[in-house]
Amino acid sequence: MEAKRSLWMFGLEADEPSYETRAAAAARLSQRLGVEVQAPRIPPVESLQLREPRIKPPASLAAFCRQDIRDRAYHSYGYDRVDHGVWGDYPNPPDVVAHPRSDAELEAILEWSDEGGFCVVPYGGGSSVVGGVTPPEDVGPVVTVSLDALNRVLEVDSTSRAARIQAGVLGPHLEDQLRPLGFTLRHFPQSFAGSTLGGWIATRAGGHYATNHTHIDDFVESVRMLSPRGWLETRRLPASGAGPDPNRLVIGSEGILGIISEAWMRIQLRPRFRATAAVTFETWDAGWEATRRIAQAKLWPANLRLLDPELARSSAGMGSGSALLIVGFESGELSQRSMVADAVSIAREAGGSVDDAEVRVEDGSERPTGRGGAVGAWREAFIPGASGGSLGGLAGLGVVAGTFETAVTWDRWPDLDAKVRSVTLDALRATCGGGSLNCRFTHVYPDGPAPYYTYVGARPQGLKAADAHNAVKQAASDAILACGGTITHHHAVGRLHRPWYDQERPDLFAQVLRAAKSTLDPGGILNPGVLIEP
Amino acid sequence: MEAKRSLWMFGLEADEPSYETRAAAAARLSQRLGVEVQAPRIPPVESLQLREPRIKPPASLAAFCRQDIRDRAYHSYGYDRVDHGVWGDYPNPPDVVAHPRSDAELEAILEWSDEGGFCVVPYGGGSSVVGGVTPPEDVGPVVTVSLDALNRVLEVDSTSRAARIQAGVLGPHLEDQLRPLGFTLRHFPQSFAGSTLGGWIATRAGGHYATNHTHIDDFVESVRMLSPRGWLETRRLPASGAGPDPNRLVIGSEGILGIISEAWMRIQLRPRFRATAAVTFETWDAGWEATRRIAQAKLWPANLRLLDPELARSSAGMGSGSALLIVGFESGELSQRSMVADAVSIAREAGGSVDDAEVRVEDGSERPTGRGGAVGAWREAFIPGASGGSLGGLAGLGVVAGTFETAVTWDRWPDLDAKVRSVTLDALRATCGGGSLNCRFTHVYPDGPAPYYTYVGARPQGLKAADAHNAVKQAASDAILACGGTITHHHAVGRLHRPWYDQERPDLFAQVLRAAKSTLDPGGILNPGVLIEP
Repeated sequence: MEAKRSLWMFGLEADEPSYETRAAAAARLSQRLGVEVQAPRIPPVESLQLREPRIKPPASLAAFCRQDIRDRAYHSYGYDRVDHGVWGDYPNPPDVVAHPRSDAELEAILEWSDEGGFCVVPYGGGSSVVGGVTPPEDVGPVVTVSLDALNRVLEVDSTSRAARIQAGVLGPHLEDQLRPLGFTLRHFPQSFAGSTLGGWIATRAGGHYATNHTHIDDFVESVRMLSPRGWLETRRLPASGAGPDPNRLVIGSEGILGIISEAWMRIQLRPRFRATAAVTFETWDAGWEATRRIAQAKLWPANLRLLDPELARSSAGMGSGSALLIVGFESGELSQRSMVADAVSIAREAGGSVDDAEVRVEDGSERPTGRGGAVGAWREAFIPGASGGSLGGLAGLGVVAGTFETAVTWDRWPDLDAKVRSVTLDALRATCGGGSLNCRFTHVYPDGPAPYYTYVGARPQGLKAADAHNAVKQAASDAILACGGTITHHHAVGRLHRPWYDQERPDLFAQVLRAAKSTLDPGGILNPGVLIEP
Repeated sequence: MEAKRSLWMFGLEADEPSYETRAAAAARLSQRLGVEVQAPRIPPVESLQLREPRIKPPASLAAFCRQDIRDRAYHSYGYDRVDHGVWGDYPNPPDVVAHPRSDAELEAILEWSDEGGFCVVPYGGGSSVVGGVTPPEDVGPVVTVSLDALNRVLEVDSTSRAARIQAGVLGPHLEDQLRPLGFTLRHFPQSFAGSTLGGWIATRAGGHYATNHTHIDDFVESVRMLSPRGWLETRRLPASGAGPDPNRLVIGSEGILGIISEAWMRIQLRPRFRATAAVTFETWDAGWEATRRIAQAKLWPANLRLLDPELARSSAGMGSGSALLIVGFESGELSQRSMVADAVSIAREAGGSVDDAEVRVEDGSERPTGRGGAVGAWREAFIPGASGGSLGGLAGLGVVAGTFETAVTWDRWPDLDAKVRSVTLDALRATCGGGSLNCRFTHVYPDGPAPYYTYVGARPQGLKAADAHNAVKQAASDAILACGGTITHHHAVGRLHRPWYDQERPDLFAQVLRAAKSTLDPGGILNPGVLIEP
C-alpha cells in the first residue's frame, strides 16, 4: 500500500545510490564544475526527531490514520525540496496522515478536519515540485490525506475506450491493471512511477504525447471530487457544449476545492505500430524552426522532442553544436510509415539531416522502435525509470540542480529563450560560481512550444542551498513572465509559483476562484496558500 | 454594419422565399405529410406595433443606441422561435439596442445599465436556438448590446498562426479578412453566415471539424471579456498548466458573466490538399459501428459525417435503408491520400461499400473535392448558404420543424438512439398527427458520437405551434438525459435547455457558477435566466 518514494531524491527508494556511488559522482561533478563537491552522509529516517503531533484522531478514524515518524517525514514534502531529506530537515511535518480506503472514510476524515478547523493537504504520489503537498506553516494542525489506498481500476468500457479509475493509483500500478485488457492510459509524465491519477488531474499534468492531446485534461471524461460541502461529480460524456465545462473547474484545482477520488478516463489501445526518426540540425534555431513546421502540419506525432545542442551532446552523444529532434508516431490500428515519411520530409526541407538508419518502422509489434542510435541514447537518459530521470546522476549530492518549464507562442519564443538563458546563467554564476543550463521541448503546439530547462550549479559556499535555488528560480521565472510565457506548462502552481501565477492570471479570475473556494470549502481548510492566498 | 438576418426563417433576408414559393412548398408538404398546410402571409416589419421603450439612453450614448421598430423587432428573438416572425408576434422587444464601436462605448453602455439596474442581453449574430438572446420577461427595461460594430481582425501573427479578432464579426466577414493572408479560422457552424466569433465562444459552438478539435474552445488562445466589475483578459498562450484554465470560465458562459469583446484565435493555413470518400452501409448500425472504428483509429478526419437511411435517402438520393458516411481530410501542407486510404480500409473491413469513383484526392488545389455523386448531393443539402440549411425548404410555412442534438458515450448510444426516436415520433403523432425524424453525426469522438436529429411535423390543428414544439422538445430532451446524453453538444443552454441542464450539471457546480456571477456581475444584470436562475 505504501509507495516507496525516496525521501531525498527524485525517484524510488529502491533506486537510491549508495554513499560510495554518491561519493564517486561528487568527485566527477567537482571536476566538471571546477568547484569541490562532497557527498553528505544522509541521516536514516529512524533517527529523526519530529515535532510531536498536535492532534489525535478519534478511535473511529484510527484504523486508517498514522502518526509514526516514517509516515509523517515522508509526507512533509513533495519533490520540490528533496535536499531537505539529504540534511534530515523536517521542521513542519503533518500531524496526522490519513489513508482512507473508501468514500465513507474519505468523508469521515474530511468532516473531522472541517469540524476541527484542521488544514487538509490532499496527497497523491508526492511528486509536486512546487510545494503543492507541503504542510503550510502557521495554520495549526495539519491532516495530510493520502489517496494511496484508493488505487484500483473499477470499471472498463471497452466499446467507448474509457475506464473508471480511483485517484490514488500510481502510474505503473494503473498500467498493470489496464494491460491485461489490451489498454493503456498512455500518460507518462517524468514522475510516472511516483505520481497518481488524482495528482495528474489536480495539477494538469503533461504526459506522454508531445502534440495534440498533451495534458491529462484531454483524457478526463468525468471526475468525482469530495469537497467539505459534499460530492461534485460530472456526467460521463465524450463532449458537451452545456455551459462552462465543470470538469475544468476540478482539473487544475490543486486540492483547494476538494479531494479528487476517481475519474472516468479515456484510454488507448496498446500501440502495435510505431515509426520513429532522429533528425539533426546544425543549429538550435534550425531545430526549433523545423519543429514548428512539423507541429503546424498537424501530423500529431506522439513524440516530438527537440534537444538543444548542450543536451544533445550530454545525453545523446551528438557532435558539438547540433540539435537533435526525435519524432515518433504510434497507433494501435494503423501503420505509421507514411506519417514518419511526411515528418522526415518536412524536417529535411527545413534543413535537417536524417540518416536513413535512424528512421525505424515497426508494424504490428509491441516492441518500441529506436532502441539503438541517438534515439536509444536519449531514451536511456530520459525515460522514467531508465536512469532515475534527468537529474538522476546528481542525486544526494546537495548540489543546486533543478528544472523549470513554460509554454509561449512562437513569435515570442526566440526572445524568451535568449532572455531565460542569460538571466539563469547569471544567477548560477552569482550564487554557485557557475553552472550549466540546457533546454528541450517536451510538448509542441501549432502556436508555440513548451520548453523545459534543466540547470545545475555546484553547492553554493556562502549561501543555503534553498536560497541559491530561489535566486535561480526567481531570475528564470521573472524572465519567463516578462517574455510572455506561462509560469508553468505542467509543473503546476502550488506555493512556489504563486508570485508569478498572481501576475499571470487575470485578477478577476482570482476573485472567481476565491468565490469558488468559499462555496466548496467555506472553512478554508483545503491546501491553504496553494493557487490563491489562504 | 447591420446584419441582414431574416426575421422569420433560419438564414438571411436575401434568401427569404416569396409568398408564391412558400405556397408551392406548402402544397408539396401537404402531400408529403398527409395534412393540409397553408403558407401564411407574413406582416412587413413596418406595420408592427411594438411596446413603447421604457427607458431612453442619455445623450452621451445616443450616437450608438437605437430604438426604432426594425432594430427592436430584430433583437426580440434569436433563431429559436422564428415562427414568431411568421405571425408578427413581438410582445417583449428590448427597449434599447446599443451598437458600441469601441471599448469605451462598451464600458459606457454597461456602466449605464448597471447603474440603472437594466437587464443587459449581449447579442452576436442572433442565431441562438435556445432563447440565449431573448429579452427576459418581468425584469424591467432591457438593453440589448449588439457587438456588430466590433467586427475586425485586428492583428495576425503568421508565425504562431493566430489572430486577434473582435467578437462581433460574422463568419463570412471574418473569413474575408483572413483570406488575403492565406489563413482561415475554419469554424463553420451551420449558422456560419449569421453568427459571430463572440457568440461561438460564449456558447461553445461546434464547427467544421468533425473530429479532434471540434468546438471553438480548442481554437481560443486567449480571450477578453468586459464584466460589470471590469475587464477579464487572459494571457496569450499555446497551453498552460497554471490552475484551472481561466479561458474555460469565459468559454460557454453565455453572456451571464460579461461581454466578450475580442479573442486571440488559432487560425489555419487554407487547405490545398483534400481527400474525400463516400461509404455506404446496409444498415444504420453498421454505419455507426464503422464510424466508431475510424474515430478510435485517430486518423482525425476533418469530416466524418454519418447520415442515417432516412436522411441519406432524402438529401443524398441513397437507396432505401442505406446509411451514408462522408469521410474527408484536408491539409495546407500534405497530401491526404494515405489518410483517406486508411479510413476507407477501416470502413470496408467494417462492412462498408466504397465505389472507387467516390474516393477523390486533390493535391495542391484549393478546389474542394466531392462536388459530384453522393457527397455532392449532401453538400448541396447541408453546407450553409447552399440551400438555407436543413430546414430551408420549410421556411415560412409555420410547420413544427426543428433540430436537437447531444453527445453520448458509445456504450449508451444504441439505447439513446432507439429511445429518442421512439419518444420523438410519439410526440409528433400526438401533437401534429404524425411527422418524420432523421439523424446524422455532426461530430465524432473516440469515446462517443454527437448525433443531430431533425424533426418535422405538420402545423398542429388544436394546438399553438409553440406548444407543439415544446411537447416534442420535452419528450426528446427527457430521453436524452435519461439515456446518459448531454442536453447540448453545441446548441448551448440558454433559457430553453435550462430544465435539463439543471439535471445534468452537478449542483455544486451551479453554486460555483452563481458565486462567479455574483463576483463579476453583482447587480445580476447580465442575461438573467440563462444557465442559472436569475
